[in-house]
Amino acid sequence: MLSHGFCFSSINAIMEAMKSYRKELWFNLPTRRGFVNITPDVEACLRESGVKEGFVLCNAMHITASVFINDNESGLHQDFERWLEKLAPEKPHSQYAHNTGEDNADAHLKRTIMGREVVVAITNGQLDFGPWEQIFYGEFDGKRRKRVLVKIIGE
Amino acid sequence: MLSHGFCFSSINAIMEAMKSYRKELWFNLPTRRGFVNITPDVEACLRESGVKEGFVLCNAMHITASVFINDNESGLHQDFERWLEKLAPEKPHSQYAHNTGEDNADAHLKRTIMGREVVVAITNGQLDFGPWEQIFYGEFDGKRRKRVLVKIIGE
Amino acid sequence: MLSHGFCFSSINAIMEAMKSYRKELWFNLPTRRGFVNITPDVEACLRESGVKEGFVLCNAMHITASVFINDNESGLHQDFERWLEKLAPEKPHSQYAHNTGEDNADAHLKRTIMGREVVVAITNGQLDFGPWEQIFYGEFDGKRRKRVLVKIIGE
Repeated sequence: MLSHGFCFSSINAIMEAMKSYRKELWFNLPTRRGFVNITPDVEACLRESGVKEGFVLCNAMHITASVFINDNESGLHQDFERWLEKLAPEKPHSQYAHNTGEDNADAHLKRTIMGREVVVAITNGQLDFGPWEQIFYGEFDGKRRKRVLVKIIGE
Repeated sequence: MLSHGFCFSSINAIMEAMKSYRKELWFNLPTRRGFVNITPDVEACLRESGVKEGFVLCNAMHITASVFINDNESGLHQDFERWLEKLAPEKPHSQYAHNTGEDNADAHLKRTIMGREVVVAITNGQLDFGPWEQIFYGEFDGKRRKRVLVKIIGE
Repeated sequence: MLSHGFCFSSINAIMEAMKSYRKELWFNLPTRRGFVNITPDVEACLRESGVKEGFVLCNAMHITASVFINDNESGLHQDFERWLEKLAPEKPHSQYAHNTGEDNADAHLKRTIMGREVVVAITNGQLDFGPWEQIFYGEFDGKRRKRVLVKIIGE
């Protein structure tokens, strides 16, 4: 019986061997474009998950939005806005084949530059970040409700 | 003996604690450039893997091709083609230092914009996608056999 | 007692069910910009980790640097340098709102094009690569010590 009980605790260990966690973060930006620092939200998810070692996947669930890691500095965010408008200008809307009934082709292109997702290492229950890394939601076609997925696997 | 038998079942539980799955998807596009919706193929891999919670990594195994997530809309795909040709034009081939014996430098640059890989969350045995997310193979130097890797880990 | 001993070995199996491994790679490039092939370093990490099936995450820990996968070909690297200077020129420094006290806004943009991270599949204890895939550190604001994180999870 003692060894039987021991086996039960080994099963608990198995259940802890891989955990998974899922949460959606919702946004409704008042502007067409904008950046939101979601690092505190992702950290809250990580605490809630109880995962100590593993990966966080954080991705836009919409194809006109982005999740990316960069600096929390407003001048840089202005630079991103100007730069993306240069590489993939919004107007004239008619320049894009996608814009028949839509006006957001540029948002698909901008999100492609900025990226759909980030994968972040989890070490000792923390986001394993360099000194200036922060996670941002990048909105390129706002004024409506949109989502980011936070999925964590690990132990 | 009973407790011994119980231990065996705990080992089965371990084997289920983390699964891994691997498959190569092969392509041979008749054109230099093109996009292929591979979402059904990745979904078939996921079903075959039996994984319910985890991550799918889907990456081009070639450095002149891409795997990316965006909209399954032909107008947008035309916009991508035009836009990539503007940002990293194919011709003249001689504008690139890489093109000595090669002619595909632009394909390396285009794939950099579009990305090598996507990581997708698996929840309840499904690709955990927003409403319009679809996975595409992006070919930038076709007319030959090339591969995408689908690797799944989870439980 | 025999079954008790058996249970212990099942715990070892659990510990092997998911492993995690972490290492920082340090760089100090003598130039502002440059590319370093880090594939041998990541392979050494993988051997050290003992992981046979899983994922490697390899990311810049600094927001003016990149980790990306492409060809180990010097002509292509010259093309990347010229192309990135065209898409996000360093000078004049004053063109960027970020450059008040800083001069590296272009490095943030260049890294955005090249990407922060790669996730690579591990199969049979090897990086599961196509024929030409190599992992590079991309420096866009060098002449100081900077880091890349290698994080491995798997079994």
